[in-house]
Amino acid sequence: MTRFASFADLRAACLDLPEGHKEMAAEVARREARLTKPPGSLGRLEEAVAWLSLWQGRNPPSLDQIEILVFAGNHGVTAQGVSAYPSEVTAQMVANFAAGGAAINQLARVAGAELRVMALSLDEPTADFTVTPAMTEAAFLDAVTAGYDDVSDAVDLVVLGEMGIGNTTAAAALAGALFGGGARFAGLGTGVDDDGLARKRTAIETALARHADVLDDPLRIAAALGGRELAAILGACLAARHKRIPVLIDGMVSTASVAPLQALRADALDHTLAGHMSAEAGHRLLLQELELKPLLDLGMRLGEGSGAAVAVSVLRAALACHTGMATFEEAHVSDKET
Amino acid sequence: MTRFASFADLRAACLDLPEGHKEMAAEVARREARLTKPPGSLGRLEEAVAWLSLWQGRNPPSLDQIEILVFAGNHGVTAQGVSAYPSEVTAQMVANFAAGGAAINQLARVAGAELRVMALSLDEPTADFTVTPAMTEAAFLDAVTAGYDDVSDAVDLVVLGEMGIGNTTAAAALAGALFGGGARFAGLGTGVDDDGLARKRTAIETALARHADVLDDPLRIAAALGGRELAAILGACLAARHKRIPVLIDGMVSTASVAPLQALRADALDHTLAGHMSAEAGHRLLLQELELKPLLDLGMRLGEGSGAAVAVSVLRAALACHTGMATFEEAHVSDKET
Repeated sequence: MTRFASFADLRAACLDLPEGHKEMAAEVARREARLTKPPGSLGRLEEAVAWLSLWQGRNPPSLDQIEILVFAGNHGVTAQGVSAYPSEVTAQMVANFAAGGAAINQLARVAGAELRVMALSLDEPTADFTVTPAMTEAAFLDAVTAGYDDVSDAVDLVVLGEMGIGNTTAAAALAGALFGGGARFAGLGTGVDDDGLARKRTAIETALARHADVLDDPLRIAAALGGRELAAILGACLAARHKRIPVLIDGMVSTASVAPLQALRADALDHTLAGHMSAEAGHRLLLQELELKPLLDLGMRLGEGSGAAVAVSVLRAALACHTGMATFEEAHVSDKET
Repeated sequence: MTRFASFADLRAACLDLPEGHKEMAAEVARREARLTKPPGSLGRLEEAVAWLSLWQGRNPPSLDQIEILVFAGNHGVTAQGVSAYPSEVTAQMVANFAAGGAAINQLARVAGAELRVMALSLDEPTADFTVTPAMTEAAFLDAVTAGYDDVSDAVDLVVLGEMGIGNTTAAAALAGALFGGGARFAGLGTGVDDDGLARKRTAIETALARHADVLDDPLRIAAALGGRELAAILGACLAARHKRIPVLIDGMVSTASVAPLQALRADALDHTLAGHMSAEAGHRLLLQELELKPLLDLGMRLGEGSGAAVAVSVLRAALACHTGMATFEEAHVSDKET
């Protein structure tokens, strides 16, 4: 049984969002000002600690329990020749995650995070959205629910990633539907050649024309042009907000997945931080549309939550400074001359 | 007794540099191509592993022994009112490093690195370089030697940082002397007000005019306009090159410190990576002049090696992927369709 009974039901849940714990962020800022460094000189590290406290409601915040949730799905649009890899690779990579051989396995270990992988009906790809909606309302809500229910209560930070051959095409189509401009969010994905990119653009333009009737509804856009793993990420991001758990978003696909939430309510992504800027061309444009400023820009374009997983180390560095540094008084260091 | 007997002696050492182990970098690239990810999709993480192997001469490279060397010095130019903090803070912060209360103590722990702090004659500030050269040839060579001798043989990576009230003025003067454009590298440092910034610019312009006779000699520039900690960083960076140890450079002051090496020989910084882009305004310009592309851009401007220490986590992530990931064959994942 699905948690959300209809688009309308889910929309209501997307509009009913809690605020952060503002008093905790203020407490963090007051301590930061007393630590032995020029005010603000740790830059985004200071902001990150305040953001963690804002959502966790704790000062200091904690990074003991971090979960990386990777959702996997298959896409009918691969019939249009939009990917450099065959669809079987999605399931093969899920097996690789289980065996510990993928990049995200290594990065989860470095980040001190638990990796959980959820394969979503891989033997049942979504429909080719150049022809029909990728998912029915029921299939979409099932996937959203799966993601929603995968977010634990007792977690300090959620990292959202994905795997799905063809899903940068879905992400670019979804972004184009939300923000306009046709296929401008299309990029090389796993590394298509010029012909592949042309096919990708054509597929996106075709899909945007085909589904013109849903373009005023962010959730119907997500159902028509997204994919199961994108819907699950939306659900997980929404669940984290309802539980006031901070979220690190990964690259192009993860960001497109949560974009409908912001389209529904402008502050819906305030509990998220963009872990990195992907080298996938459309991601920069998408982050600009969402006014998200990524922590890292390392030319990564792998998905799996990999960029966001690297960004966890930045949060650990930030937290270590906040909790471990001496104040000016404790260290007998002269404060700024005034 | 100093290792370098004269400017000429040091210059000879700066010109006589070993190359990296190119065959090792090639080996790394060959393995990267077989790992279960689209080629190049880990971006700068892949480059970083190749760079570590290039200089360590090992595949895989190692990050077991990392040393963060923080050099501290005092500056006569503080008499010109160029800093927001009094000069006593340099020694107070060195005490804070020893007590474990500074940002770099926490960041070294997160990075899994050993922190070593070298205070260089703090009770004997360099001369006010608006009036005379900051250091005599002998004092400069002593500081270079101190840094040179602080680099151990058995270390996998060296991170270079500094502490010194007034040293962003020295760094900006040094950069202006090397690259032209007067005081354009001046920034707010620890946070001076508008009047302080004006005094800083005036001090730099005065110094550049005063020492116009040395502007064709990078080492004499470093002696006249630098400081002991800057000279020590130059020496440590040179020693690391002679030992073929990779180096992470920190922010404005660290970067300015090693700039004379590149002015003497164009490839002198090939064994270094810029750990981050500082929020200190001149750092972006300086990195552009040196054609160095920073790993991180987190709005940090603390010095102490702090930005580079955070970047160590990126290297750890890169190495973990390189050594831990399965190949396409091992994981039975289909390679790219060709």
